[in-house]
Amino acid sequence: MRQSRRGDVDPFIVMDVMEAARQAEEAGRHIIHMEVGQPGTGAPDAARGQLAQELSDPLGYTVGLGLPALRARIAHHYGEWYDLDLDPSRVVITSGASGGFLLAFSALFDNDDRVGLGTPCYPSYRQILKAVGLSPVDIQTSLENRFQPVPADVAAHELAGLIVASPANPTGTMLDEQALADLAEACAARNAALVSDEIYHGIDYDRPPVSALNVTDDVYVINSFSKYFSMTGWRVGWMVVPHDHVRRVERLAQNMFICAPHASQRLALHAMDCTGELEQNKAVYAANRELMIAGLKAAGFDQFAPPDGAFYVYADVSAHTGDARKLAADILQEAGVAVTPGADFDATRGQHWLRFSYARSTEDIAEGLRRLARFMAGRNG
Amino acid sequence: MRQSRRGDVDPFIVMDVMEAARQAEEAGRHIIHMEVGQPGTGAPDAARGQLAQELSDPLGYTVGLGLPALRARIAHHYGEWYDLDLDPSRVVITSGASGGFLLAFSALFDNDDRVGLGTPCYPSYRQILKAVGLSPVDIQTSLENRFQPVPADVAAHELAGLIVASPANPTGTMLDEQALADLAEACAARNAALVSDEIYHGIDYDRPPVSALNVTDDVYVINSFSKYFSMTGWRVGWMVVPHDHVRRVERLAQNMFICAPHASQRLALHAMDCTGELEQNKAVYAANRELMIAGLKAAGFDQFAPPDGAFYVYADVSAHTGDARKLAADILQEAGVAVTPGADFDATRGQHWLRFSYARSTEDIAEGLRRLARFMAGRNG
Repeated sequence: MRQSRRGDVDPFIVMDVMEAARQAEEAGRHIIHMEVGQPGTGAPDAARGQLAQELSDPLGYTVGLGLPALRARIAHHYGEWYDLDLDPSRVVITSGASGGFLLAFSALFDNDDRVGLGTPCYPSYRQILKAVGLSPVDIQTSLENRFQPVPADVAAHELAGLIVASPANPTGTMLDEQALADLAEACAARNAALVSDEIYHGIDYDRPPVSALNVTDDVYVINSFSKYFSMTGWRVGWMVVPHDHVRRVERLAQNMFICAPHASQRLALHAMDCTGELEQNKAVYAANRELMIAGLKAAGFDQFAPPDGAFYVYADVSAHTGDARKLAADILQEAGVAVTPGADFDATRGQHWLRFSYARSTEDIAEGLRRLARFMAGRNG
Repeated sequence: MRQSRRGDVDPFIVMDVMEAARQAEEAGRHIIHMEVGQPGTGAPDAARGQLAQELSDPLGYTVGLGLPALRARIAHHYGEWYDLDLDPSRVVITSGASGGFLLAFSALFDNDDRVGLGTPCYPSYRQILKAVGLSPVDIQTSLENRFQPVPADVAAHELAGLIVASPANPTGTMLDEQALADLAEACAARNAALVSDEIYHGIDYDRPPVSALNVTDDVYVINSFSKYFSMTGWRVGWMVVPHDHVRRVERLAQNMFICAPHASQRLALHAMDCTGELEQNKAVYAANRELMIAGLKAAGFDQFAPPDGAFYVYADVSAHTGDARKLAADILQEAGVAVTPGADFDATRGQHWLRFSYARSTEDIAEGLRRLARFMAGRNG
């Protein structure tokens, strides 16, 4: 049967790590999971309790843009977190950030349009763009620019659009207000669409992240309940789009998704009021981050940008290997710690990098760091 | 900010009807809803009870292809319903049938590929194809062919793919085994991909529907828990794909969706064992259908193909009007019954057709038919 070229998606290298880790666990070994991209916690307890009460409601389709109460609550959230007065009509509830990207790309781009990604980055940007007939364009970023694209990239790469992420996966770096404003200006000058992935907002440490909405209304902001709100498996997120894009996004959403999952929308609404539990989760990430920065350096993984947010450290391991995939396999085999090789995030330079996640419990992180230190001492000894 | 051509999606005409109905209800009028495309029932009670017990589980991401237990249960279902021995590895859990279409189109087609639709049909086929950069091709079907495409259409329209639906929305007609086999053969002869929408399977009356899997393995079968299993708002469905397409669909699913909603997958697994309640729902549709066939004819809406399945009657109203949209507005205004004008399903001929849904309670259907009869008597009197 026929197969498309657009559907020839690269495999995730991390899947091999996860399968090897699963097999090791099945064989009775204890593995520390520093490869995962999701919180170890579930949705807030109180929110789950409220949803349990509501399961007797029919929970049929919602309207395409999502529950009005949830859209209003999210608009209110922009007041609380960013001091912004956001019109709820600009908020679109999506089937996770993934659903947001699919909607955004359909609303903004035509076949073969060039859309820029600052690599290293979340690998699915590239694959989703390709899967819907667009042309992902890798922009090599640098440690000096903290792994973020710069305004000159927009013209240099003849982009129809640019995706930025702050805090970013895998690096954890953020764009400040001036950097975001400069990128927005560069995009506007060339009629390129700016798409701002803000999925890790709320998981920040030294200073709060800036939303692209703080500097422009000409942007698609994509967010999710998966990270700070700890609701990965519920597949619900949101977008904020310009006023004159709301109707087209509504029609696209009605046709492409009908609606985001109704129960997940209810749960999200409840989760937004569970600040106590969510801030406890965040305190765990903050403690883990301190351990990681010190522990990775002590183990010899000392080349990384300080993570401003999210729960990852992306480290240059070229002093230790030219084959990060092999190093990750050795770490799993010998130290019992699963980590992600850089190739998923950066096809060009990834063989010199590893991503370490600190999304799980502090006990796990401490034990993982002890194992990494022993492994590296043995390797260098 | 830039907008794409592919995102210029046609509006749903039915949305105007629904908004007018909502306003009428807000003003205190009682409206019978024959415009809706979803069951009035929620998910099966016992399944909801089981899910409530499981809400304390973390419910994080599942693997991309979905919960192995649900995939196995669906494979078993093909034995029970179709006498087929289906390998569970070919079953892909999707974010509703909508998610299935997005995955299928990415896996099968490249930019501007021509994909045929037998009109009248579910309007979102056309809009999703367009939204991902493909070329929907309308195939005008006829009452003699029971509104289904015929094998010669594949070559005549130079198709890279063909979407069929049986039972179909809006007509309720089915393809028998020979018709499906002939279409599959015509597709294979031209290397066109056959996509079979089987979302209304289980809601059939005189004879059970045939699955495209009964005649070929070279097909993408798309199904959902929204209709027979009465789980619209949970956004979970499934696909069956050829063996040699599983890996590519898995990679696409990981990138485009990560996974279908976890809680919805659990609920679906439980719902598959709620046969008693589901068959009660079906008995309501069967009773409604009998009322509809007799009542619509008595009211003067007597030009339609007998609905083999689903919960719709699609009637030619050209004897009464050349403007079905105006007629639908009049019926809502004067009779208090919301119905769907044909233009959503067929841009060319839809101005002569109306779709009547009988998905709600039998009391509602009986009252709706009384109102329609009075309205038509008054109009002709």
